[in-house]
Amino acid sequence: MKNNGKKELTDIASLGEFGLIDHLTKGIKHHHPETIKGVGDDAAVIDNGPHATIITKDLLVEGVHFDMVYTPLKHLGYKAVAVNLSDIYAMNAQPRQLLVGIAVSQRYSLEGLEELYAGMRLACERYKIDMVGGDTTTSTGGLFLSITAIGHAEKEQVVYRSGAKPNDLLFVSGDLGGAYCGQLVLQREKQAYKANPDVQPDISKYSYVIERQLKPEPRRDIIQLLGQKGIRPTSMIDISDGLASEILHICKNSGTGATIYEEKIPLDQRMAQTAHEFNIDPTTCALSGGEDYELLFTISQDDYDKIKDNSLVHPIGHISGADQGHNLFTSSGQLVKLTAQGWDPIKGK
Amino acid sequence: MKNNGKKELTDIASLGEFGLIDHLTKGIKHHHPETIKGVGDDAAVIDNGPHATIITKDLLVEGVHFDMVYTPLKHLGYKAVAVNLSDIYAMNAQPRQLLVGIAVSQRYSLEGLEELYAGMRLACERYKIDMVGGDTTTSTGGLFLSITAIGHAEKEQVVYRSGAKPNDLLFVSGDLGGAYCGQLVLQREKQAYKANPDVQPDISKYSYVIERQLKPEPRRDIIQLLGQKGIRPTSMIDISDGLASEILHICKNSGTGATIYEEKIPLDQRMAQTAHEFNIDPTTCALSGGEDYELLFTISQDDYDKIKDNSLVHPIGHISGADQGHNLFTSSGQLVKLTAQGWDPIKGK
Repeated sequence: MKNNGKKELTDIASLGEFGLIDHLTKGIKHHHPETIKGVGDDAAVIDNGPHATIITKDLLVEGVHFDMVYTPLKHLGYKAVAVNLSDIYAMNAQPRQLLVGIAVSQRYSLEGLEELYAGMRLACERYKIDMVGGDTTTSTGGLFLSITAIGHAEKEQVVYRSGAKPNDLLFVSGDLGGAYCGQLVLQREKQAYKANPDVQPDISKYSYVIERQLKPEPRRDIIQLLGQKGIRPTSMIDISDGLASEILHICKNSGTGATIYEEKIPLDQRMAQTAHEFNIDPTTCALSGGEDYELLFTISQDDYDKIKDNSLVHPIGHISGADQGHNLFTSSGQLVKLTAQGWDPIKGK
Repeated sequence: MKNNGKKELTDIASLGEFGLIDHLTKGIKHHHPETIKGVGDDAAVIDNGPHATIITKDLLVEGVHFDMVYTPLKHLGYKAVAVNLSDIYAMNAQPRQLLVGIAVSQRYSLEGLEELYAGMRLACERYKIDMVGGDTTTSTGGLFLSITAIGHAEKEQVVYRSGAKPNDLLFVSGDLGGAYCGQLVLQREKQAYKANPDVQPDISKYSYVIERQLKPEPRRDIIQLLGQKGIRPTSMIDISDGLASEILHICKNSGTGATIYEEKIPLDQRMAQTAHEFNIDPTTCALSGGEDYELLFTISQDDYDKIKDNSLVHPIGHISGADQGHNLFTSSGQLVKLTAQGWDPIKGK
């Protein structure tokens, strides 16, 4: 395509986040044998002799990942650490160290940064993480956080997205959709505040979903549970983009299909009430909402008896051959196709 | 201090970059014995049995660290990688892996990001670095780069800022002040371009200093040289903020003083000419200019004969007891006090 004799440039948004990363990292070659896993999982994995070092990095950008109107800086610091730890746990590894990069504009005060650090330090204290370095610099607009988390695992215990096999069972921890509903409430209150700053809204009835949004907890307890039960998941991923998207990641990396059951998806009643208030189907929140930071994993059927009665994790379906596709059995008995946006009706199936 | 009944907030800039980091990371405790070195050096160091893993992180922010008017995206990508590798070499370690975080606004095209990645991949190819992961996201304004580099070293070979001892010799690689002069030229040309976009300036006579600014090379060759000669520096740091500031870092961390000689500071003739053109003392550029990414290190006098004839490195002074302070002998025979901004006249000494 030409435009006034100049080559027309391609809009980044047209590729989507995953398409963009795939495009930019295509054909990257590794030089070192200790690089076990590069781009394409929750974290990179480096061989260190008897064990492996696991490294992940996440950016949080003001106006994109958080809104300073309703995000207390201490919560933001806590969450920035939590989401990186979640990536390490999703590799079945233990996070141990953290590096913090902050670019901050002049409108932030020292006291504001102290709050941010207090939140990060609280998360580090709770999850026993050593804050070992980083970089602090000026930004021309807004606040940018870049966290790198470093973890540790026995090499053969590391779990990738790529190990799921047909007939494996799909499990998810906790409950889903809450973080998205929390964001809906916070955005609504922001609009109400802008319209009339004198009204103090009562948001106490939404405290569960708001906490899911502002202060997620990475699921160290699930990794401990799996270890205690002697279960090594065949694949695992953390739920940052919504259940549907994460299932598709596991299937793509493992070369499989999957079927899940709507009635098995764990939903909290408080989330469902909020979703109904916003005229959204609670299942849609779970499938597409994102930011729940629960763990999605697959296990061999042989391991089922070991955790079938545990209340922390829930079987939601199973892995199939790739030719079976990605399906959701709805509560009303329909078979629909799972997509990254939630689901599509399937015709003629 | 009070202001309308509200507590007055502290301006971040009032602490300076190093003061701010010190303040925010004060009292951080480590939980894990393998965390050998945390905040306060070029990189963090983690014990991995027979060897150590070295990790560093740098942010580059549009409008702060680079100006898109005169920074080609490919050069920017190359430099973003180079400055992180420089931190790893400054620990006497070999960089091996890299994680890339990019937050980018809608005004960047896919082709622009491809250029940026081409520069990063070129640096990775040249220095044999595996690009193993990262995060790409939207920003509300401008381009933010966050690079994490991971290196490897035999544990006892790692060099910190803290090991300098009185009578050790101070060495510096390459020549200094060029990157700063390159920036002066680029900023002048930007103003000229804004005043009259039709004039094509001839900047070929400044190509050396411009290259020093836009495309620094991390000094892998110096680390190789030291290894070949069997020299383990007693302390080392890379020169990102100017020679004076880096000498003070080594002295502060080692609990020493230092004296350097102006006539020994390596200056390139092309840098000196540019500095004179801007009515700046070339020595000031070297002491305070920054961004040269050369290595500053100290060695025991016993090692002097091993590298005294090598043209890559230059002795510029020596370490002394802390009570001797930080001094510069000027070419005119004056003894002046070295400060992070360059130097101050010393009275009565």
